[in-house]
Amino acid sequence: MMGNADLVLKLLHLNGSAAFNRWAGFEIVSAEPGRVELRMGWKEEAGQYAGFLHAGLVGAMIDTTCGFAAFTQVGAVLASHYSVNCMAPAVGRAFHCVGQVVKAGKRQVFTRAELFAEAEDGTRKLVATGETILMTAA
Amino acid sequence: MMGNADLVLKLLHLNGSAAFNRWAGFEIVSAEPGRVELRMGWKEEAGQYAGFLHAGLVGAMIDTTCGFAAFTQVGAVLASHYSVNCMAPAVGRAFHCVGQVVKAGKRQVFTRAELFAEAEDGTRKLVATGETILMTAA
Amino acid sequence: MMGNADLVLKLLHLNGSAAFNRWAGFEIVSAEPGRVELRMGWKEEAGQYAGFLHAGLVGAMIDTTCGFAAFTQVGAVLASHYSVNCMAPAVGRAFHCVGQVVKAGKRQVFTRAELFAEAEDGTRKLVATGETILMTAA
Amino acid sequence: MMGNADLVLKLLHLNGSAAFNRWAGFEIVSAEPGRVELRMGWKEEAGQYAGFLHAGLVGAMIDTTCGFAAFTQVGAVLASHYSVNCMAPAVGRAFHCVGQVVKAGKRQVFTRAELFAEAEDGTRKLVATGETILMTAA
Repeated sequence: MMGNADLVLKLLHLNGSAAFNRWAGFEIVSAEPGRVELRMGWKEEAGQYAGFLHAGLVGAMIDTTCGFAAFTQVGAVLASHYSVNCMAPAVGRAFHCVGQVVKAGKRQVFTRAELFAEAEDGTRKLVATGETILMTAA
Repeated sequence: MMGNADLVLKLLHLNGSAAFNRWAGFEIVSAEPGRVELRMGWKEEAGQYAGFLHAGLVGAMIDTTCGFAAFTQVGAVLASHYSVNCMAPAVGRAFHCVGQVVKAGKRQVFTRAELFAEAEDGTRKLVATGETILMTAA
Repeated sequence: MMGNADLVLKLLHLNGSAAFNRWAGFEIVSAEPGRVELRMGWKEEAGQYAGFLHAGLVGAMIDTTCGFAAFTQVGAVLASHYSVNCMAPAVGRAFHCVGQVVKAGKRQVFTRAELFAEAEDGTRKLVATGETILMTAA
Repeated sequence: MMGNADLVLKLLHLNGSAAFNRWAGFEIVSAEPGRVELRMGWKEEAGQYAGFLHAGLVGAMIDTTCGFAAFTQVGAVLASHYSVNCMAPAVGRAFHCVGQVVKAGKRQVFTRAELFAEAEDGTRKLVATGETILMTAA
């Protein structure tokens, strides 16, 4: 496991190296071994028909946050499976995703995440949850 | 159920009304009751660290195609759950997603999808599969 | 929502009315609104090839516990979807499953569960997690 | 890959060596590389509250059939994840589950299955689908 300052630096580098993450505006809010929080500000281009955050971006935040959380414990990983539960319309000025490692094995890492919408007054509401399974680098 | 010409028109409208779909460049290739094919050309901004299609976009294509397939049978739906299996690196000049309805009930629609990467020589390879559960409009 | 004594009685009745639950020996350990703990003692007939608890019974405990947790908040429900993550061999003298409601909507209830194996010395180890989506009675 | 006669024998042995499979009465109907069909006759002890097949047994059939299908291609595997979609009440005199390998990699095998209820007149109805992810033996 890495120290916190070290792993924030590594995650900043990882996040910055992915073109889609830059387009989406994913920001690392905090990171510690086994737990990462990601933020994305609302932008028009991220919307679906009704102007909510597109379910694909809900999944992208969950997949990315969980991958980062796994990275903090085992280094490089590859997404193998993820699932997304859409519980309420994803509407807000920003979105926060908190991902954590449930179990890190030698070959697989199991993680889960919660995604919150931040309203204009700063209050947060749970709008989605998800899980990912990642493979460690061979 | 709608006639094919009618439902292609409705899907073109639906697809065009979602800002994220326009940004991603999702195109409707074909549509019939219970089955839709979606295409997305590769673009730099859609990449993850290694330059493959970001898993979030893999999920966005699966979620969108399945939602469209459900729409062809029951009209307006809301995504409730989706899952994504990443089986091979999503690398190609374009991606094709074929979604179909497995069971359309009164309250829920179950669908599944396969995502293929199209190589420079035009050959296609299965790189991901997924499932979605959608709620019919109340 | 029901009072705790009332809902334990209702769950005992529900549990006793299902033949498979009686065969498996599912016992309700505790129940409060939105949270239920279920126990199953190890028995030979529940084993797979290597003598661990069969993954089907891991799923049955998760499905049952989550259904009971949903029942405590919204009454009768129908399982629509569930998933199971097998993280470690399910070996022990007993198994405990803790299920909780994540979000109870008008039409759907989202829940999650953790399954622990109890060793001979009484210590518990997380061996599986799962999620369920349930439909409320129409 | 094994020849069909050889792999049916190996699956019969595998199936017979699991106590839960014997209790449930799982029978191998057919097997070929990458595809297995399993049957279970209805029995009272397998029922839930309303007398339908318990969702745990629906999952157990899906998990088992998929594990057998994976075995036909890569030998010993361990279940890592499975999911179950309950689409209609599982009512019938018998249940048939058809599982197939979608992609067999070096470390992971992705499979999917469909479960049919057989009515008194012999007709079959799709009542559930599922997916599993299995790890190859290290």
